[in-house]
Amino acid sequence: MPEPAVNHQVRLAARPSGLPRAADWEFTSEEAPAPGPGQFAVAVSHLSIDPAMRGWMNATRSYVPPVEIGEVMRAGGAGRVIASEHPGFAVGEAVSGMFGVQEYAVSDGRGVIKLDTSLAPLPTYLGALGMPGLTAYFALLDTGRAREGDTVVVSGAAGAVGSVAGQIAKIKGCRVIGIAGGPEKCRAVTEEFGFDAAIDYRGPGLRKKLRELAPGGVDVYFDNVGGEILDTVLTCIARGARIIICGAVSQYNEDQTRGPANYMMLLVARASMTGMLVFDYADRYPEATAELAGWYRAGRLVAREQIVPGSVRDFPETLLMLFEGANTGKLILALDER
Amino acid sequence: MPEPAVNHQVRLAARPSGLPRAADWEFTSEEAPAPGPGQFAVAVSHLSIDPAMRGWMNATRSYVPPVEIGEVMRAGGAGRVIASEHPGFAVGEAVSGMFGVQEYAVSDGRGVIKLDTSLAPLPTYLGALGMPGLTAYFALLDTGRAREGDTVVVSGAAGAVGSVAGQIAKIKGCRVIGIAGGPEKCRAVTEEFGFDAAIDYRGPGLRKKLRELAPGGVDVYFDNVGGEILDTVLTCIARGARIIICGAVSQYNEDQTRGPANYMMLLVARASMTGMLVFDYADRYPEATAELAGWYRAGRLVAREQIVPGSVRDFPETLLMLFEGANTGKLILALDER
Repeated sequence: MPEPAVNHQVRLAARPSGLPRAADWEFTSEEAPAPGPGQFAVAVSHLSIDPAMRGWMNATRSYVPPVEIGEVMRAGGAGRVIASEHPGFAVGEAVSGMFGVQEYAVSDGRGVIKLDTSLAPLPTYLGALGMPGLTAYFALLDTGRAREGDTVVVSGAAGAVGSVAGQIAKIKGCRVIGIAGGPEKCRAVTEEFGFDAAIDYRGPGLRKKLRELAPGGVDVYFDNVGGEILDTVLTCIARGARIIICGAVSQYNEDQTRGPANYMMLLVARASMTGMLVFDYADRYPEATAELAGWYRAGRLVAREQIVPGSVRDFPETLLMLFEGANTGKLILALDER
Repeated sequence: MPEPAVNHQVRLAARPSGLPRAADWEFTSEEAPAPGPGQFAVAVSHLSIDPAMRGWMNATRSYVPPVEIGEVMRAGGAGRVIASEHPGFAVGEAVSGMFGVQEYAVSDGRGVIKLDTSLAPLPTYLGALGMPGLTAYFALLDTGRAREGDTVVVSGAAGAVGSVAGQIAKIKGCRVIGIAGGPEKCRAVTEEFGFDAAIDYRGPGLRKKLRELAPGGVDVYFDNVGGEILDTVLTCIARGARIIICGAVSQYNEDQTRGPANYMMLLVARASMTGMLVFDYADRYPEATAELAGWYRAGRLVAREQIVPGSVRDFPETLLMLFEGANTGKLILALDER
């Protein structure tokens, strides 16, 4: 490492009830870690801010262990290798991985991906060319089996995953309707991301608008939000519809999750509701990344990031932006002086 | 027809809120109908009493049109041909079909199945060798993709569909746990129907018992009941689990359906929840019926019916037995003097 540095970190101090508050976090600092044999050190420049983070803060059973109290908050990030005792990673290389909410991380390379910054800027690898893009890709095409001619509805359509999901659906020849909050996001959904239509769920008549825009019913519903929107879309599904459960951002801060009261529409429509996690597709990341990158290079896939400049101390506030619906595209905290 | 006869009928008088009451029904009588060209007349001897009937009474969108106010209540039934102007149906033949809650029906043969009463008594064709058996067969094997070694949980396990579903799962080499209400039904589930275990949901600790009986998680959940039991089983599913939405008898009389609050377990477990309707498999009824009949003949499939003797006027009370959980096996109203 060039010089001894201080590693500022954010740790989980308490398990929140509802929205995370300041008291749920602890700011700590320690000497930046040095890599041991087979390891390398990364200076983190960009932190990925994800809705799933809220779930990791709970003690309940999930697909990954909870973040323990006192532990550095789990987070994806990107940065550059600044010191290496690992034969596969050289100083100066750009990488992404689960580095945590801190300025420096040490890694043995597991789950770390090298980034080609000649193709796209580093933050794009936390968005359209990263986990959100891969999630959209596998969820839509594998879990949802979207096919040419399908009517696809995407909630959280202006978000990191939704915006890519809708664009892939368009590339595959689907008719695509996005659901987003507010006129500005809806404008981005159609004008920037090229969906066929957008519905502002904050306005009235979601169901009526869905019926007008999808008179033959919804073949694929890509759900990032859960709650009332999921229930409304359920009333509009076509026979044999596939509902992808990718997230439920409307529910993450609720003490009591709202289940989809209209789930018996699954029977009426002979439809399915299937959960997916991108990690299950790890062996297919290279092919999917190559296809996403090809679309990106060809101008067919628009990558948008909302980059908040700051320090790790800004992490708590930035996370809340997700639950306020304040972001369009991938929300990223860019660490100063990187 | 041998002689002019009176056809007693039960018609829908009003759409119920909650459990159907006496005032929701109207008893009528008219001259028994005579078949026209291409038709035949059936004297109905057995009425199939089904949970789905409650849904047919609602005005809301479903997989079949609602029964209209003033219309003869929709019902499956079995009986014998008593007059025929149809070349394919002869007087004396035993048949089943959607004949309605009445003593005589005229049919053009659509959806009518001829019954081999040398193999099984007529009521069995309304149960294990009829729609409930076919529903269990396709839901378990096609929708649920149950495989040897799977742990299968069936709710409504003492009912018409559940009792057959569990037996097929056993035949296919699954480990099978039934959920039923009360010690008597639980006894039937293990001793008569041969499930590996039964849990009385009226007792405490359903979740704890499920965890003990299915330590590796539930691979297939065959849901006939919905509500709290569905939510509890969701917390116990294995990775890649398939949940079959076959019914929701706990919810049919509720004004507000309870959605499965734990549906995000679908994501955690990469699981699916899929609705099915047996009618979609009409072209495969013959193969499935042959397989079910083979198991029945070989003594591997136990068919149990609970036959209530009476007249069509007893239909309203008999229907309520379903929602009180009063029946074990297929509930049938046998019409007197047939």
